[in-house]
Amino acid sequence: MISILLNGCNGKMGQVVSRVAKNYDNIKIVAGVDLNTAKIFDYPVYKSPEEVVENFDVIIDFSLSEATMKILEFAKQKNKPVVIATTGFTSEQKSKIFECSKQIPIFWSANMSLGVNLVAELIQKAYKALGPSFDIEIIEKHHNQKIDSPSGTALMLADAINEIANNSYEYIYDRHTRRKKRQQNEIGIASIRGGTIVGEHSVIFAGPDEIIEIKHTALSKEIFANGAIKAAMFMIGKGAGIYNMKDLINSM
Amino acid sequence: MISILLNGCNGKMGQVVSRVAKNYDNIKIVAGVDLNTAKIFDYPVYKSPEEVVENFDVIIDFSLSEATMKILEFAKQKNKPVVIATTGFTSEQKSKIFECSKQIPIFWSANMSLGVNLVAELIQKAYKALGPSFDIEIIEKHHNQKIDSPSGTALMLADAINEIANNSYEYIYDRHTRRKKRQQNEIGIASIRGGTIVGEHSVIFAGPDEIIEIKHTALSKEIFANGAIKAAMFMIGKGAGIYNMKDLINSM
Amino acid sequence: MISILLNGCNGKMGQVVSRVAKNYDNIKIVAGVDLNTAKIFDYPVYKSPEEVVENFDVIIDFSLSEATMKILEFAKQKNKPVVIATTGFTSEQKSKIFECSKQIPIFWSANMSLGVNLVAELIQKAYKALGPSFDIEIIEKHHNQKIDSPSGTALMLADAINEIANNSYEYIYDRHTRRKKRQQNEIGIASIRGGTIVGEHSVIFAGPDEIIEIKHTALSKEIFANGAIKAAMFMIGKGAGIYNMKDLINSM
Amino acid sequence: MISILLNGCNGKMGQVVSRVAKNYDNIKIVAGVDLNTAKIFDYPVYKSPEEVVENFDVIIDFSLSEATMKILEFAKQKNKPVVIATTGFTSEQKSKIFECSKQIPIFWSANMSLGVNLVAELIQKAYKALGPSFDIEIIEKHHNQKIDSPSGTALMLADAINEIANNSYEYIYDRHTRRKKRQQNEIGIASIRGGTIVGEHSVIFAGPDEIIEIKHTALSKEIFANGAIKAAMFMIGKGAGIYNMKDLINSM
Repeated sequence: MISILLNGCNGKMGQVVSRVAKNYDNIKIVAGVDLNTAKIFDYPVYKSPEEVVENFDVIIDFSLSEATMKILEFAKQKNKPVVIATTGFTSEQKSKIFECSKQIPIFWSANMSLGVNLVAELIQKAYKALGPSFDIEIIEKHHNQKIDSPSGTALMLADAINEIANNSYEYIYDRHTRRKKRQQNEIGIASIRGGTIVGEHSVIFAGPDEIIEIKHTALSKEIFANGAIKAAMFMIGKGAGIYNMKDLINSM
Repeated sequence: MISILLNGCNGKMGQVVSRVAKNYDNIKIVAGVDLNTAKIFDYPVYKSPEEVVENFDVIIDFSLSEATMKILEFAKQKNKPVVIATTGFTSEQKSKIFECSKQIPIFWSANMSLGVNLVAELIQKAYKALGPSFDIEIIEKHHNQKIDSPSGTALMLADAINEIANNSYEYIYDRHTRRKKRQQNEIGIASIRGGTIVGEHSVIFAGPDEIIEIKHTALSKEIFANGAIKAAMFMIGKGAGIYNMKDLINSM
Repeated sequence: MISILLNGCNGKMGQVVSRVAKNYDNIKIVAGVDLNTAKIFDYPVYKSPEEVVENFDVIIDFSLSEATMKILEFAKQKNKPVVIATTGFTSEQKSKIFECSKQIPIFWSANMSLGVNLVAELIQKAYKALGPSFDIEIIEKHHNQKIDSPSGTALMLADAINEIANNSYEYIYDRHTRRKKRQQNEIGIASIRGGTIVGEHSVIFAGPDEIIEIKHTALSKEIFANGAIKAAMFMIGKGAGIYNMKDLINSM
Repeated sequence: MISILLNGCNGKMGQVVSRVAKNYDNIKIVAGVDLNTAKIFDYPVYKSPEEVVENFDVIIDFSLSEATMKILEFAKQKNKPVVIATTGFTSEQKSKIFECSKQIPIFWSANMSLGVNLVAELIQKAYKALGPSFDIEIIEKHHNQKIDSPSGTALMLADAINEIANNSYEYIYDRHTRRKKRQQNEIGIASIRGGTIVGEHSVIFAGPDEIIEIKHTALSKEIFANGAIKAAMFMIGKGAGIYNMKDLINSM
């Protein structure tokens, strides 16, 4: 049984983690930390980490950047691994995370969905096998309330290709204004917005008379909670350093 | 048995029509007209319509605009229906087509694929039932040699909606530069280019917790030949006037 | 403002209707009837219809067949329209529903999703235009807890085609044991089961070199609540008789 | 420039290879072997390998099993690599292929499409990362003239998973007759037949609130020719032994 301290337990994602954790036999949230100390689930909630009296194996952090900094200090004192699922850090805060990783094991990924990170791995493998003669196009679909476009995940996927292609690809968001043939060094990225679509990302490799498509569909935000819990299990017994979803996937 | 005179018989699409016509038991091409009078198929080919000696029921025209004008004159003399599958007419030529339609039955459609025209009908029906609370998005995919974007067919589909929506929709080709929430009066149109994709058009109606998608996939140019042949069969016995794919579909 | 009496208000779907109704400006649930009289939402709940003191325009019934019979009697007394979204009636109960429809307007549909019923209409239109030379195949996808296969909705869609095809189609659920070419009079129905997929139905018309696909994706059970509310609005001012989703769609 | 001897050059696939080879700058077919010695392309055709006078680097074999046995003998004499794209060998013939591979390099794959073999690799990687909590389903689509079901490729993909899952999966072709919940150790395989669909294979991993789908679409038989040519290029400089598409993909 792995015992978890959940930082930001009463936030939106903290509550999802608490609910999802019940599906795992070998996982138990033993305490939460949150400015709002309402006891919603069956574990005690503390205002600050120092008050925590329970023993725990690993920390999951779904909070705000300031709270992440505090929980990292606490993790160093206790010498425990931390899974950081919080986003929106300043460069200074990012430096501090790297600094802490010299003393404790830290899991840190831009996207906590195992599936999306797996897709990033798969398209890298596909790119290596298919080569530049297959044209790459990305379609992402989200609900009509989403403001940014393309999605951060679509860019993460394009970057995953570009990273192993010596940054030779240019991203094209609009073909309407171009009136010219597609170039081989383009990755087209199209954003579809409508209704209540949770999130869909599709990467298309279109070559001579064959197409390979790798698609991820999210049905709810629970997938990020599942990813954080799997990361927590992965971190047990690890040494100091930075780990990410790629490490987790390749460990399987 | 319906006998056909094929104008432009030795052009690219003329040859496809000749090949595809063999699949129909009740259809026979009895003669062709083309500047190139090579005899490729089992019917005689004439340089100009006046030389044609065979009897025929209907003309299929897959040629160039000038040749279409000539075959229309010939059709008027013979009082026969014409299926115009040629494109690229000047306004003057278009006027002449309308003029001719006062004397003979003329079938004229921007896109000769029965399937694409059916999709246009289906999305109109869907729009009427679903109303403006469903967001409409169009994705079209074509090979990497296609220069224009979006495809004419994608615009035809968007126009089909707009026509019954009092032109209240605005077409959005790029969300990347906008950084704002989708408005209800948008139709997003995304163009994917890659490999040798023949042609795919998908219209998405995304509403509260449900999505309806209507998709057309073309596997070859034969569908335009099939559409022209079906149009020819439809035109037998019709009176003077302009007919299009919508009439054909609704007659079924 | 249309005022609604909700029968079965504290059941699973009754609660969804109550939540979803808040999204409509012109709709108000003024009272509920349920054996469980807990007041969960902002309207009073009564054990039996006779206790209801509020005025209302239309009844939505998401209950059990016995409770439906009682609410129908009450509707007759009050001369109000009823939307029946309950399922699982005996033949005797069905007869009684028809009997009641001679006095009051009753909306009754096997599937309350507007989208699914629209798809049934669209595939009928597509079948008429495409004819038997296009092969019809249905793929349905649901979560791994679903026991029956194919889904009732998949059968409803196949029946929609067969109804206008003189019942000439045979349904094929397994090609593995056949080892022979597909016949034209087959509708293939494939059932996919996995994860937490809410529900997806795709009808494919595959013809010579073109494919038309019409797909419905459900993201939650809210779509049935939305369908019931739209049906309630449709029933205002109707005369006695049976109405269904087809009537609603064609009224738009 | 790599020079190729093409065995079975006047067969259906031999002709496709000849046509496709023109797209490669660094490839030249210098001679063909076929019982039918018609000269269709710009290289000489011989009735038997012994007559070949041209120098060549590698043999591509798209013939019949008997002809494959003869070309293998010839390859041993000349000490040249062979790409076997022929199928339908007896066990005795298979033994002989293995025997030959002790002396010369032989490329031998059940499916010559690079894309399909890549998909096999990708789904193995996905399975390892996602584990058995994701349900696996395969959908394959082919034209209405195909007799066997499921396709050999669908079975190859299912086997690719089963191979790394200790053969723990059972293949389910029909859920219609079962009326029970899906078990975790099932791989559902559904066969869709319609129109002129060339070939589509989709592998779905459906887990808790997320779905990963990996899909291959073939647009023509040219992909098998491209695979054979890429295999030929891969075999230059290899030592004796059996090689397959997995080796080719992982070399990239």
